[in-house]
Amino acid sequence: MIQIFIEAAPLRAHLNHLRDNHFTIGLVPTMGALHSGHISLIKASKIQNDLTVCSIYVNPAQFNNPIDLEKYPRTFDSDIEILKDAGCDMVFAPGNNEMYGKPSQIKFDFGSLDKILEGEFRPGHFSGVALVVAKLFNIIQPAKAYFGQKDFQQFKVISKLVEELKFDLELICAPVVREPDGLAMSSRNMRLNPDQRQKAVILSKVLRESKAQLLSGEKLTLVKNIAMERFMAQNIRLEYFEAVDKDSLTPLETVSDPGQVVLLIAAYIGEVRLIDNLFLIEK
Amino acid sequence: MIQIFIEAAPLRAHLNHLRDNHFTIGLVPTMGALHSGHISLIKASKIQNDLTVCSIYVNPAQFNNPIDLEKYPRTFDSDIEILKDAGCDMVFAPGNNEMYGKPSQIKFDFGSLDKILEGEFRPGHFSGVALVVAKLFNIIQPAKAYFGQKDFQQFKVISKLVEELKFDLELICAPVVREPDGLAMSSRNMRLNPDQRQKAVILSKVLRESKAQLLSGEKLTLVKNIAMERFMAQNIRLEYFEAVDKDSLTPLETVSDPGQVVLLIAAYIGEVRLIDNLFLIEK
Repeated sequence: MIQIFIEAAPLRAHLNHLRDNHFTIGLVPTMGALHSGHISLIKASKIQNDLTVCSIYVNPAQFNNPIDLEKYPRTFDSDIEILKDAGCDMVFAPGNNEMYGKPSQIKFDFGSLDKILEGEFRPGHFSGVALVVAKLFNIIQPAKAYFGQKDFQQFKVISKLVEELKFDLELICAPVVREPDGLAMSSRNMRLNPDQRQKAVILSKVLRESKAQLLSGEKLTLVKNIAMERFMAQNIRLEYFEAVDKDSLTPLETVSDPGQVVLLIAAYIGEVRLIDNLFLIEK
Repeated sequence: MIQIFIEAAPLRAHLNHLRDNHFTIGLVPTMGALHSGHISLIKASKIQNDLTVCSIYVNPAQFNNPIDLEKYPRTFDSDIEILKDAGCDMVFAPGNNEMYGKPSQIKFDFGSLDKILEGEFRPGHFSGVALVVAKLFNIIQPAKAYFGQKDFQQFKVISKLVEELKFDLELICAPVVREPDGLAMSSRNMRLNPDQRQKAVILSKVLRESKAQLLSGEKLTLVKNIAMERFMAQNIRLEYFEAVDKDSLTPLETVSDPGQVVLLIAAYIGEVRLIDNLFLIEK
């Protein structure tokens, strides 16, 4: 039986009672439109915690683009069925009034971390992410919280939030889950038409090819040029393709220590903005 | 018996154990150099909670002025004696390494709330306050946390932090405690020489006089002019004197609803910056 909460107060009371009885709580924050990537997080949480809460909330504060917010897929009923099948124990699905009573006045700044990559192209995005994640952490007070590596920069920002604000919980970063052709699972994939869906494989393909080139000793500048040409040839708008240090996210000009390097990519397939990333050497 | 913790982990473990046994925890965050104002907070916490933690930490992140940080009074041994006498149960007195392992990357922005009054003259101050308070809330996880009305804008900023980040605790604002001549208690008063100590009474005196003038119908612009002249006559640097809305802290140009009005003042007595405030109508 899955329990659905739309208000914070009764969920808090319920979770306090469970914690009093020494149940550990895992949290999987989502914006709904659930896919196998999300389910892998639920399954990881079920293994490591007594009870798992999945939050479903499309957070307006993290959308810099109102059309993206409007078109973000909402599939609540099927999400609940998927969560039931996955054995999720509780769902927190608040409305905007519950999460933002009054218009928000607080903004977060993460220094260099939120000015690059996604931060450069989505101003205010990570402040909105940090705000909603802090709310969810304080409402649910999980022992562990699960995020996907697909949003790698998001994971770094949330890691910084937890580290600096000293939230009493452990963050888990779960591997990217991919379609058979390599496309990273994303709720936004639902918005692709069949032709775009085929084209979208280019992000993961270029990541894999670039990784192979770099590991065989090719220079980063050359590898980036090849990648850019691949996108231009298909008339696809590449927003960024960077090799960065996996700790600081500082963009690199050369690859000297492959174990430290992540490749990150963002591109528009039609109107749909997709992101992906790949470690040069998997941990 | 008072327990002193200098590290977060053992304090957390101890408090988790106490919470498991249904003890409620009150928190009084301080920067040490304790005076009767702090003790009134400890006493309020002891009445409303099973156990009281006082934190003592001079937070570098909230000092915009390095000389102010250097000269901030540190009186740890006598603080502990005072806390023992007051019946405080636990002290958390971390070092800088414990509170800021690496240099901080996160900054908070509170919109209009931290650009005026103290925020205008102490850039970065409230971001540093919010950061350390969030850390303390997450380490100690109190049911109630106590702050003095002397730092009224600080209380509003922390209220916003708790409201927006949905911290699971209640904030209590305790009245200003004053010396017999009216001077608001402050750790910084220790830095005044006897002559300055006498002069310092001007802040509370001007607040009281201005309140009386406003309540008898005097125009705010006139009252502000009289106040400024009082400071000029004594050659004391007035940084601001404002009547603001007690909810939004928006500076007012006229007083139409006295129940909504707080007078706030900041001035330098010698090198020492002092603040004070007064409600036109006490709640």
